[in-house]
Parts: sequence; structure tokens; C-alpha cells
Amino acid sequence: MAFRSQLKIRFGDIDRAGIVYYPRFMHYFHVALEEFFAGELAIEYHAMVETQRIGLPTVHLQTDFSRPFSYGDNIEVEVSVLKVGRSSITFGYRVFKQGENESRIIGCNVTVCLNMDTFEKVGIPTWFRQLLEQQLKVGET
Amino acid sequence: MAFRSQLKIRFGDIDRAGIVYYPRFMHYFHVALEEFFAGELAIEYHAMVETQRIGLPTVHLQTDFSRPFSYGDNIEVEVSVLKVGRSSITFGYRVFKQGENESRIIGCNVTVCLNMDTFEKVGIPTWFRQLLEQQLKVGET
Amino acid sequence: MAFRSQLKIRFGDIDRAGIVYYPRFMHYFHVALEEFFAGELAIEYHAMVETQRIGLPTVHLQTDFSRPFSYGDNIEVEVSVLKVGRSSITFGYRVFKQGENESRIIGCNVTVCLNMDTFEKVGIPTWFRQLLEQQLKVGET
Amino acid sequence: MAFRSQLKIRFGDIDRAGIVYYPRFMHYFHVALEEFFAGELAIEYHAMVETQRIGLPTVHLQTDFSRPFSYGDNIEVEVSVLKVGRSSITFGYRVFKQGENESRIIGCNVTVCLNMDTFEKVGIPTWFRQLLEQQLKVGET
Repeated sequence: MAFRSQLKIRFGDIDRAGIVYYPRFMHYFHVALEEFFAGELAIEYHAMVETQRIGLPTVHLQTDFSRPFSYGDNIEVEVSVLKVGRSSITFGYRVFKQGENESRIIGCNVTVCLNMDTFEKVGIPTWFRQLLEQQLKVGET
Repeated sequence: MAFRSQLKIRFGDIDRAGIVYYPRFMHYFHVALEEFFAGELAIEYHAMVETQRIGLPTVHLQTDFSRPFSYGDNIEVEVSVLKVGRSSITFGYRVFKQGENESRIIGCNVTVCLNMDTFEKVGIPTWFRQLLEQQLKVGET
Repeated sequence: MAFRSQLKIRFGDIDRAGIVYYPRFMHYFHVALEEFFAGELAIEYHAMVETQRIGLPTVHLQTDFSRPFSYGDNIEVEVSVLKVGRSSITFGYRVFKQGENESRIIGCNVTVCLNMDTFEKVGIPTWFRQLLEQQLKVGET
Repeated sequence: MAFRSQLKIRFGDIDRAGIVYYPRFMHYFHVALEEFFAGELAIEYHAMVETQRIGLPTVHLQTDFSRPFSYGDNIEVEVSVLKVGRSSITFGYRVFKQGENESRIIGCNVTVCLNMDTFEKVGIPTWFRQLLEQQLKVGET
């Protein structure tokens, strides 16, 4: 089963209209991705930058919002690896209200591997590619 | 010429890798949209919710990032109206580093008109549609 | 024992210097306060505004930071009621790194009860005062 | 006359109660401080960390909020240097609604100079001390 991160809609996340200020969902995506790294890829997201000197800037982002969330909602952000290219990785996100079977938000972002010392695009290192490809199989089952 | 909002990359916007934490760009999009409402549509974004009781939740978001921004960069966020449907509006965004001719980020979001009292989708009110359609013409020139 | 909210330092919380961008701590305080309302006062923070029509704007804030936090740190934000006035409430906060006995941040904020319909200061309603005064006793033990 | 940074209250800054989510003011303080560095101290805030390898973490923060701000308010954040110690600097902030003579928020934060390579407290470098002391005189006039 795909990895899910548990989050909660906070007062500072909702706007004047009582629904989540949409840029906050991109922050949720990122938080869930960090949890995914620590929990599934067994490497802290931060260590990618600090230790491995690999940055993962987003080059493409796409999201569909079908139903809104409100203050206090407990949400689950599912993270999966959708595609592994030579230097690019596509992560998928689905956001559920806890207890519901149907997602309310579906999104993905494409990131590229960057050498943090030269700021140049590099191929995905083998050790990292292996971790990502294991996740591709998780998604298939 | 299309409307542009002037912004600046702040310390709190950049991440550990020294580039902008990407969810911040969605906040920039929103800030630029608010400026667009006040400057081009002649209605404060907030008044849409407060006075007109019309919410504009985002149902689709798409963004391509081709080159990163750094701390202190002065940026210009261009806002345009790409499409006006029965109840949906598509806004386009292009982000430039000041002084450059080529945009570094291109994005759009689709919003739907919501009656804030019933939370139901409604057709775009005539007065608002007229304002939006004038902007479509700006985009064509 | 005083109430504690469990949080984690995220990538988007740290700045270029690798430590938490300090305004984020005020957000953590607020998130912990919301948890405190739900968990200890048995009323959702949001319901204060929505249902009870009582706002709690902050009129005074004070914080001392003795040691910094880093990415990935698991933190505990302790919330307590320090003082209950006629219309004002003082909440106390202490932030610990998980597993440490000494807090790294100590703060408080004074809030006043506001009638959300008239935007005028009002005395703390009896039902709310009773909940708060129980918490004062928790702090004493 | 003291330095002032011009800002505007945005949709994402206000909360469900229609007033500014208070942690946002600390972000405004920081943005104004960055402008103060670039405009008055003639050094980009970022360059302090990047080039001079000096961090300025906040060790104390104090703020009084006397009147709230609403969406769309144009605000001015005044920044001044209140005190220069051996390794600590106290910055003062006053927030005005544009056109008003009386501030609505008064605050200060104490920062200490940190060597970013050793993460140890250091005395304020002479070149920086001179810039700061000039600002003390501005405050006196």
C-alpha cells in the first residue's frame, strides 16, 4: 500500500472564505514528500542536500482539486513515485480526508537531480535510483 | 501590454538549497492576482468574497519552472485572463526576472465561481464577465 | 502534567542559515494552541470564532530563544494558561527538543476576548472562564 | 527620519476572523529588516550570511499589538537600531497604517552575531558596528 502522511488543516492555513489557501497544499505536498523520504526511501530529505549534495528542484507541477477541505480536517497525503527518468523523478500525490476512499486532490511534480556544488543537472545516482525503482513496484501492486 | 506585479524574493522564501521553496511561487501567483484584481478589474479581490459573496477556489493548477530564482531577485509576475467559461476562469501567469525578456516560470490556474452562501457553483455574473472579457482582448493584442 | 503538542521542523521552515526562520515559531505556537483547545479545553479553536463568535487576537507577545533547532528535529510545544483576567488570557509556551529536559524557547502571548459581531472587547464568558481556570490549577501542580 | 518599508496585507495573511494571522507580522518585521539592510546599512541581508558568514539569530522578541489590520491595508514598517552591544543588536519596529500618525504595533527583537562556520557567538565586526552606530544617531534625531 502506498505511503501516507497524516496532516491536519490549521487555522493559519484557511483563508477568509473558510477554505484552505491553495498554496498551502503545495507545502503539504512537500511535507509529505519529506516524510516519504524518511519513511520509505530511508534517507532524510535534508541529507540529500546536506550530505549527498543533491538538490531536487521542481520543474513541473500539476494539481487538480475536486473538493475543498475545512479547518480541523484530518488529511492523508499519499506519496508515490510515478516515473524515474535519467535525471528526473515524478512524484505523485493524492489527498484524502481521513475515512474517505476517494481523493479530493490529485497532483504530481517533476523534479530533476541537481549537483548542489555545480548547480548542473546530473543523472540519478545508482543508490538513489534503486530506492526509487523499488517504489515504482509498490505503486504497481 | 499585460499586467505585471512587482515582487522581491525574501529571506523567508528561500530554502536550505538557496533557491525559492516552490510552494512560495503559488503565493506569489496569488499576490499578483490580487494586484491584478485591484489594478485591472477595478475590484478588490477581497470584496469578491466579502461584498459580492463570490469565492474563486482553484480547481486546477499547472506550472513549469525553467530557471530558478535567488534571494534578492526582483521579479515581475505577469497575470492574464486565458479563458472565460460559464462558471470557470483560467488565469495565466508568467514570472520574469526584472530586466529579462524570457520568463522563467509559466503557469495557470482554473478557478470556479462559487456562491459563498450556498457553496454552490454559479455562472459568472454579467458585470464580472464583462471585466474578464475585456482582459481577454488585452491578451490578444 | 502540562499539555504538549508534537511537531517536526520541516524543510520549508528552515532558512538559508540552516536554522528555523523565527516567524515560524509563532506559527508553531498557534498550532500548539489549537491542539490545546481541542485536547484540553474540549472546544475546537475554530468553533470559538465560528460558533461562539469570539475572537482571540493577540495584544502582546514575548519570546526568548536560547538554543536553535535544525531540520528534522522533533519538537514538543508545551501550552499552559498563565493568567486569566476579565477579558484577557495569557498563554505560556515552552519548546523542547524531544528527549531533552530543558526548554530551548520560552514565550507567552496575551489575547483578549473580542465579540466577533461588534469587534468589541468582552468579558470572558463563564463557560470559557471555568475551562481556563481548571488549566491554571494544572499549571500549579 | 527613520527608515520605513512599504508593505500590503494580502489575502493569504488574514485568517478566518478577517484579521492578520499574527505570526505574519514577524514575517513583515523580517522583510522590513531586509529592506533596512539593503537601504540603510548598504549590505544585502543575505550577504551577511553568504559572504560575511555572520548569522543573526533572534534571541528575544517582544511585540505589542494595539489595533488590528485588515485585508488590503497598506502598511509601513519602521525599522530602527535601538541598542548595539558587544555581540548583540536590538532592532525596533513600529507598524503604521499608511496615512496614520500613531503606530498600531510596536516591537523589537534582539539578535546576536554568530560565526556561521563555527556557530559560535562573536563580537560585532568593526565595519558592521560603524554602520549600526550611525543608525543609533538617526534614531536620536
